[in-house]
Amino acid sequence: MASLTRRTLLAGSASAAAATTFPLHSAAAAAPPAGKQAPGFYRFKIGSYELTAVYDGLWYRDIDDKFVRNVPFPEVQRALTDARMPADKIVLPFTALLVNTGTKLILIDTGTGGQIAPTAGSMDLGAAGIDPNAVDAILISHFHPDHINGIKTKENQVVFPNAEINVPAPEWAYWMDDANMNAAPEAARPAFRNVRRVFGDIAKEVKRFEPGKEVAPGITSIAAYGHTPGHTVFAVASGNASLLVLGDTTNHPALFARHPEWQAVFDVDGSMAAETRKKLLDRTAADRMLVQGYHFPFPASGHIAKEGSGYAFVPVHWQPTL
Amino acid sequence: MASLTRRTLLAGSASAAAATTFPLHSAAAAAPPAGKQAPGFYRFKIGSYELTAVYDGLWYRDIDDKFVRNVPFPEVQRALTDARMPADKIVLPFTALLVNTGTKLILIDTGTGGQIAPTAGSMDLGAAGIDPNAVDAILISHFHPDHINGIKTKENQVVFPNAEINVPAPEWAYWMDDANMNAAPEAARPAFRNVRRVFGDIAKEVKRFEPGKEVAPGITSIAAYGHTPGHTVFAVASGNASLLVLGDTTNHPALFARHPEWQAVFDVDGSMAAETRKKLLDRTAADRMLVQGYHFPFPASGHIAKEGSGYAFVPVHWQPTL
Repeated sequence: MASLTRRTLLAGSASAAAATTFPLHSAAAAAPPAGKQAPGFYRFKIGSYELTAVYDGLWYRDIDDKFVRNVPFPEVQRALTDARMPADKIVLPFTALLVNTGTKLILIDTGTGGQIAPTAGSMDLGAAGIDPNAVDAILISHFHPDHINGIKTKENQVVFPNAEINVPAPEWAYWMDDANMNAAPEAARPAFRNVRRVFGDIAKEVKRFEPGKEVAPGITSIAAYGHTPGHTVFAVASGNASLLVLGDTTNHPALFARHPEWQAVFDVDGSMAAETRKKLLDRTAADRMLVQGYHFPFPASGHIAKEGSGYAFVPVHWQPTL
Repeated sequence: MASLTRRTLLAGSASAAAATTFPLHSAAAAAPPAGKQAPGFYRFKIGSYELTAVYDGLWYRDIDDKFVRNVPFPEVQRALTDARMPADKIVLPFTALLVNTGTKLILIDTGTGGQIAPTAGSMDLGAAGIDPNAVDAILISHFHPDHINGIKTKENQVVFPNAEINVPAPEWAYWMDDANMNAAPEAARPAFRNVRRVFGDIAKEVKRFEPGKEVAPGITSIAAYGHTPGHTVFAVASGNASLLVLGDTTNHPALFARHPEWQAVFDVDGSMAAETRKKLLDRTAADRMLVQGYHFPFPASGHIAKEGSGYAFVPVHWQPTL
């Protein structure tokens, strides 16, 4: 093999610039660049149900030594660079999930609504062949803005006019309580105010459920408290197949599946969140269950594997057909 | 948190069947299932070049104790199950790569042409907005059928009528030599015959290049022999950005990046292939280079990270825009 050096690898660039080998401007121009990304959705089946993971983009979020509360920042930076992220930014993808049960079209979490980061808000149901008017129900895992903001536009218009909105009762109780808002540190108050903005004028239409119940045909809610006081995950089951929708059980798996004991600044109760995370990751790894994670790399579907003292996310292989 | 058992997780299924909570057939039927996968392509930029990874599907290939020549089969099966594949099948994705340099539209390897596995052959340039007639040049890494069959249809018609076909000279010399075909074990002969089928009647139009040369503007070929006698990788460079197109330097990374010393049944010279693989993985990991792997999980773009005694593939985060 020819010696492989960075110089060899980059030689193409220099010689192209010098136009030694090929005319850079041939008489026939190349096809024009397409200039557009592929539509960000992925479709799969769970039993007879048809699921669509819908990508809302990602957030390059600056982080500092406060991002993970219980480990020194250099450890966090090492995990970031191991995962080929910048050492001072976490790359945080957002993927919502649609479930068509055959009788109901259900959206689990709603994306950022373009209200969180300039590189997020690209969720495009139209590209996936889905009419927002056809969504029958919305299930919410918890009330952080990147999960609920897609319920409304920036201008406060509802995006899914025919959808019944279902939220965990303990989540509603926590965020709607003014005493909690007033007791929260100043940095946490915008999230409380955002909950009021999103739900305030539609409060009467919002259905609250107790986690543990079936909340739609074949979709069971499961309490997974800690990240927020009412954080809830959803088991989707049809025929012999099932999927666990993990919501924010972990933030980016390269950090928080790998190190389930790490407590992110987003966690309302860090140690309860870590305990819940370990239980769910352990169970899904042992049972080799398919999972969907809101902040997992798109299409955010795959398996959890035990690896060392933590867990790894093993993405599905993209299936060319359903 | 509610106790999380398989029973809890699957409860949804049973109760949906019993229709205890929701009417399974509401008056208003759900939106009809879309029934179609998203288009299998992914677009990104390297400097001013626009690249499109085009997915051709995957192959669930039955394997036995001959698949990896130099390790006991149970070790291979453990790697498969760790990667959430069946213990007796490797899931082998195929992704070709288009490079639009602004003056040339270049296709690197051509997919299976629907001639390898029923779940492969889905490569759809039209969905990616690309006219096969606009492809100016094809670069071939090596002559295994899953890389060259896309040059022609099953009916022997050329698929890219305006493309100049460029192949590594040592690859041509090896496969076109009847003495090599006659000396090969019977199981290897169909590959030789397939090379003759694909190239026989267009031989005069096929350009052979010596690896080490620039083969298109900004694209340098690099000898990476072993997998086949003329196996070649390609460095794509534009501006300050670069990408190494690894071809079959590794087969599925969950096996052969993880265990670079493993020798697959496909390798013509197993020990030379392993040596080449280690050099390339080591260099790309050290330089944190972006790589594209023909058998990496779609979109097959990402980085190589040193992990334990081997390497891991770290996929890119799907970018919602270019």
